[in-house]
Amino acid sequence: MEKKSFTCDYNEGAHPLILQRLLETNMIQEPGYGEDSFTASAKEKIRQAAGCPEAEVFFLVGGTQTNATVIDAMLRSNEGVIAASTGHIAVHEAGAVEFCGHKVITIPQQEGKISPEGLASYLKAFYADPTWPHMVAPGMVYTSWPTEYGTLYSRDELLRIRGICKDYGIKLFIDGARLGYGLMSDAADLDLPAMARLCDAFYIGGTKVGALCGEAVIFPDGNAPRNFFSTIKQHGALLAKGRLTGIQFDTLFTDGLYFKIARNAIERAMEMKALFERKGIPLFKDSPTNQQFPILTDEQMAAIEGKVLYETWEKLTDGRTVTRFATSWATTREDIALLETIL
Amino acid sequence: MEKKSFTCDYNEGAHPLILQRLLETNMIQEPGYGEDSFTASAKEKIRQAAGCPEAEVFFLVGGTQTNATVIDAMLRSNEGVIAASTGHIAVHEAGAVEFCGHKVITIPQQEGKISPEGLASYLKAFYADPTWPHMVAPGMVYTSWPTEYGTLYSRDELLRIRGICKDYGIKLFIDGARLGYGLMSDAADLDLPAMARLCDAFYIGGTKVGALCGEAVIFPDGNAPRNFFSTIKQHGALLAKGRLTGIQFDTLFTDGLYFKIARNAIERAMEMKALFERKGIPLFKDSPTNQQFPILTDEQMAAIEGKVLYETWEKLTDGRTVTRFATSWATTREDIALLETIL
Amino acid sequence: MEKKSFTCDYNEGAHPLILQRLLETNMIQEPGYGEDSFTASAKEKIRQAAGCPEAEVFFLVGGTQTNATVIDAMLRSNEGVIAASTGHIAVHEAGAVEFCGHKVITIPQQEGKISPEGLASYLKAFYADPTWPHMVAPGMVYTSWPTEYGTLYSRDELLRIRGICKDYGIKLFIDGARLGYGLMSDAADLDLPAMARLCDAFYIGGTKVGALCGEAVIFPDGNAPRNFFSTIKQHGALLAKGRLTGIQFDTLFTDGLYFKIARNAIERAMEMKALFERKGIPLFKDSPTNQQFPILTDEQMAAIEGKVLYETWEKLTDGRTVTRFATSWATTREDIALLETIL
Amino acid sequence: MEKKSFTCDYNEGAHPLILQRLLETNMIQEPGYGEDSFTASAKEKIRQAAGCPEAEVFFLVGGTQTNATVIDAMLRSNEGVIAASTGHIAVHEAGAVEFCGHKVITIPQQEGKISPEGLASYLKAFYADPTWPHMVAPGMVYTSWPTEYGTLYSRDELLRIRGICKDYGIKLFIDGARLGYGLMSDAADLDLPAMARLCDAFYIGGTKVGALCGEAVIFPDGNAPRNFFSTIKQHGALLAKGRLTGIQFDTLFTDGLYFKIARNAIERAMEMKALFERKGIPLFKDSPTNQQFPILTDEQMAAIEGKVLYETWEKLTDGRTVTRFATSWATTREDIALLETIL
Repeated sequence: MEKKSFTCDYNEGAHPLILQRLLETNMIQEPGYGEDSFTASAKEKIRQAAGCPEAEVFFLVGGTQTNATVIDAMLRSNEGVIAASTGHIAVHEAGAVEFCGHKVITIPQQEGKISPEGLASYLKAFYADPTWPHMVAPGMVYTSWPTEYGTLYSRDELLRIRGICKDYGIKLFIDGARLGYGLMSDAADLDLPAMARLCDAFYIGGTKVGALCGEAVIFPDGNAPRNFFSTIKQHGALLAKGRLTGIQFDTLFTDGLYFKIARNAIERAMEMKALFERKGIPLFKDSPTNQQFPILTDEQMAAIEGKVLYETWEKLTDGRTVTRFATSWATTREDIALLETIL
Repeated sequence: MEKKSFTCDYNEGAHPLILQRLLETNMIQEPGYGEDSFTASAKEKIRQAAGCPEAEVFFLVGGTQTNATVIDAMLRSNEGVIAASTGHIAVHEAGAVEFCGHKVITIPQQEGKISPEGLASYLKAFYADPTWPHMVAPGMVYTSWPTEYGTLYSRDELLRIRGICKDYGIKLFIDGARLGYGLMSDAADLDLPAMARLCDAFYIGGTKVGALCGEAVIFPDGNAPRNFFSTIKQHGALLAKGRLTGIQFDTLFTDGLYFKIARNAIERAMEMKALFERKGIPLFKDSPTNQQFPILTDEQMAAIEGKVLYETWEKLTDGRTVTRFATSWATTREDIALLETIL
Repeated sequence: MEKKSFTCDYNEGAHPLILQRLLETNMIQEPGYGEDSFTASAKEKIRQAAGCPEAEVFFLVGGTQTNATVIDAMLRSNEGVIAASTGHIAVHEAGAVEFCGHKVITIPQQEGKISPEGLASYLKAFYADPTWPHMVAPGMVYTSWPTEYGTLYSRDELLRIRGICKDYGIKLFIDGARLGYGLMSDAADLDLPAMARLCDAFYIGGTKVGALCGEAVIFPDGNAPRNFFSTIKQHGALLAKGRLTGIQFDTLFTDGLYFKIARNAIERAMEMKALFERKGIPLFKDSPTNQQFPILTDEQMAAIEGKVLYETWEKLTDGRTVTRFATSWATTREDIALLETIL
Repeated sequence: MEKKSFTCDYNEGAHPLILQRLLETNMIQEPGYGEDSFTASAKEKIRQAAGCPEAEVFFLVGGTQTNATVIDAMLRSNEGVIAASTGHIAVHEAGAVEFCGHKVITIPQQEGKISPEGLASYLKAFYADPTWPHMVAPGMVYTSWPTEYGTLYSRDELLRIRGICKDYGIKLFIDGARLGYGLMSDAADLDLPAMARLCDAFYIGGTKVGALCGEAVIFPDGNAPRNFFSTIKQHGALLAKGRLTGIQFDTLFTDGLYFKIARNAIERAMEMKALFERKGIPLFKDSPTNQQFPILTDEQMAAIEGKVLYETWEKLTDGRTVTRFATSWATTREDIALLETIL
């Protein structure tokens, strides 16, 4: 692949420090299934970084897997999960949540986010309908942070969503597949400990933030569902060589590496955003994180054909195309400079 | 962990050539989800090694996940899967197959294997019972090769099992989590192409044979279930960075590395087996592969306490303990020599 | 309950001829599980009435159960089912389809119906999206006939939907919980044999058309999924005393009783519709079947409070309320006359 | 069917008083889904008969359905249910429990019963195995009373099983598909209130004890799983015409009808048992309830061929056949006298 790719944030392997650490530790014998010392160390570092010493931390392999496993474990058998109509679990996970027996209940979104008002309104209407026991009662709200459109809920929005969840006795789960890119955005008004305080479960994405694979699920108050380890196994989400995720997260949470490399992506993304603006290319969403959504004409797309890779997102009625350009931990200033010469 | 461990074949990281290749390719940009060139190359090498150019090959992450995904995809919704009562899916997968809605139908085993006669007898009795439509009809036979006791079906046994499966219109699926250790055993009377010819699906285990993770599922005749890629995603088994398994299997199937390192484990295991015999330690099963099951007395166990690690398997009625000592691609002659000084 | 109820079409017990037949046959000994002679006779009468001598017919107990059982049996494990956003399976079945692991994919509706154009457009867009393997591929279209709004697809609409289904290799399943009320509507341009020819499976609703319970599932070409009997059992949908549904459907399909009593409901509904029109009460949908949806003001609702029962359907933004008044096999001219005095 | 049938206890329709009551109430309008007055009355009568005023009572349609619905609702997603290897859910329910995602964990039985010792031994061994988190943890014990062999647990046995369940934090659920026949056996040392006190949930079978269909699930302490109504709907187990089960159970629990007709079956069964003994026909199990298991030679079977119907159960190695002859609420003294002339 000769062309520079901005298609996603998982185009490269892993951050070099991770590979180096895998190499250094390679012949050390350790037990399997997450009983290794690297995993223990990584968990402890995450508990400290998230300011929740009581937290239970588990490492899974990928995002869809993590969503399905956590959602299934936290819901009762007859409950569904509320998500934005653009939510990843509602669209791009091949029905993984439904496969576990749970309906994904979609409600309207703005900029990829559900609003506290929209959520409250849905819940009020649901229980006002006398036929609700014939419908799927929600047991959880799922949000992604950043969202599929790169946008961020503010701390206040999340607190209000949490409050509504508590009023109705339902859980709040946050998909942090790109958590680092959210936390390091200038638009974020919360940090990792704040995130841990305002939800029932969330995860710190590794796959899209410099790891080969791996997502770190956190139950901040030690509130993991009973025998969650068995649930992980049951869902096929348990690595025999747990060291693989242990070493990666241990590295990412040593000397703040996770945050530093996420910050790199944000800085490059903001440079890219400014570049699009300078070139007069409108943006579909005002994203403060590593995914940008420039709207290109057919002519513009033809002009860059073969020089740079990106994703096409959707076709507008006026014939223009919403595209996605993503930066990552691996994106360099040179990459952005190159993009400038191409556009 | 200071003590030498023989507890399993996944105590170390990956074969050094795999790490080296991960390092070399790390900054090459490639698409996700298995669309990368490494994966394409690995698939082609596996098709050649297995002598089945028409095969469809998929890379999943771990064994339990692979079993549940393949079994669910190949069974009809109302069917179950036959396994030995000691079969991995029946015992140690936390109900992953049942989670997908399918009963694991256990039949008796000898040395970890079902017999063609036992299978035929079960099937004949099942359909002779007029109430069978009230029971779970089998749609597949699951066997592991090597089995959980390290034993191997002969080619003839598998052919007879396949014949019975065909007579009843059911599939044969072979769990090859330790396939390399079977193929390189002196007791094996079949090779990879032969394996590919006698089943409907099987997998080449990577996790236990030198990879950090990964299992290569093969549908030898291009007979993958429709939209199997979506099924992989639905089961949370799709890696975003498919390159991780692609690079590993590409390395393992370059210059026969998979077979060489598996052969190392077999040679060390045979040395270990001879060592137990020299020491007068009886073996629970006559295993020709990398897992050995010495029966130890409490005194013997006390004597080696703190010097070597192994797994305890089961307690015999006479008070002695069946243990498991496993070799792997990483076990050296020195390790065996060390074990000799300890026993 | 003193007040006259028009809340639904299952307010009474069963048509008297059914009870009489249950009484007459009560002490005749018959085998269980649908092996009885009444069931055999009922199946044969249905095959004749539907003009499909090759059909396989099964009796289940209720509508939600039938939908979930048939849909699960006809879909592959990784497929979803397309329904109107107002479809019963999408709204009022407590997630029964998702419980079986399948996503209900909703598409827009008009008057409770999906349009052939809307379906074609959805399918075209789905497969045009290169990320479709990450989404749930549809394996079936579900429609209800009549719909939840009492409306009817024309024969031409269904033929076009069927054609689109065939183009994409997916099934067409018709929920006929109120089939009789559709067939006997003056607006229907198809009869039972025509229905049988234009779908892969459908059912003749008993519960809402004069039976105590029971739905007759028809696979017109003998195309029932393999071991469908076992699937019925697996879904908890098999009656031990299969005679209960057998006798009921045998009675309903003797001398055209099913059609006669359904016609009564239609005639009463049309009288009721005319009555609403005479009274200047607007109708929310122009329903040609037994469910009518008058829009009432708060004053109108207060005026009839305590005199008649009906269902409230939804609140309009102008404060008025969409209500539902249903007739049935049991509704008499006197009931309509009484309603006239109340309104 | 001219021949007298003893094949099962659901060969006839319903007890005549039930049909009479269905007839009397037929045209009374009532709401659906169990909101009718008959259902309310039936629930109250059952609460009184079971001496548990706090109980929550639900009516479902059939046994397999009831087992799957209750078990799924009471288990966590990752838990399994312990049953005797001969338990109905383990053998004859077409995998309905597994379909809901839960493993049926079978343990050895004697006379169709698990023993307190066997249960304790299984549980102790399970948690003693350090690999237990890789296996399916039990969340419930399922027993049938009477069992599939007509045998009865004593009150003491059930109390000890309950104690063990409590020690391990798991539930006890009793399948009472034939509960009446157990309660009215001379061998029973517990009554309905006693049953209600010693388990977490049980059901009173209607289908096999005089009803057309219907099972009454009781959560004695008002301990129904949250939104259990929705779970019933989700499982397709909710009758639109809830009056059908309401009226039947209301009749069965008026003037002790349920117990009287169950007692009839027991008296006839004991006459039948004495008859077999007089004829020198050995019994496979010493059943004190309505199912008897005479062992017949081929000659004996040939002699009665065409004169009486019964079920064949299993073939013994000596060539003789275990058969089942069942009495019911409908069996008369004349039936037994007739049998005497045939044998």
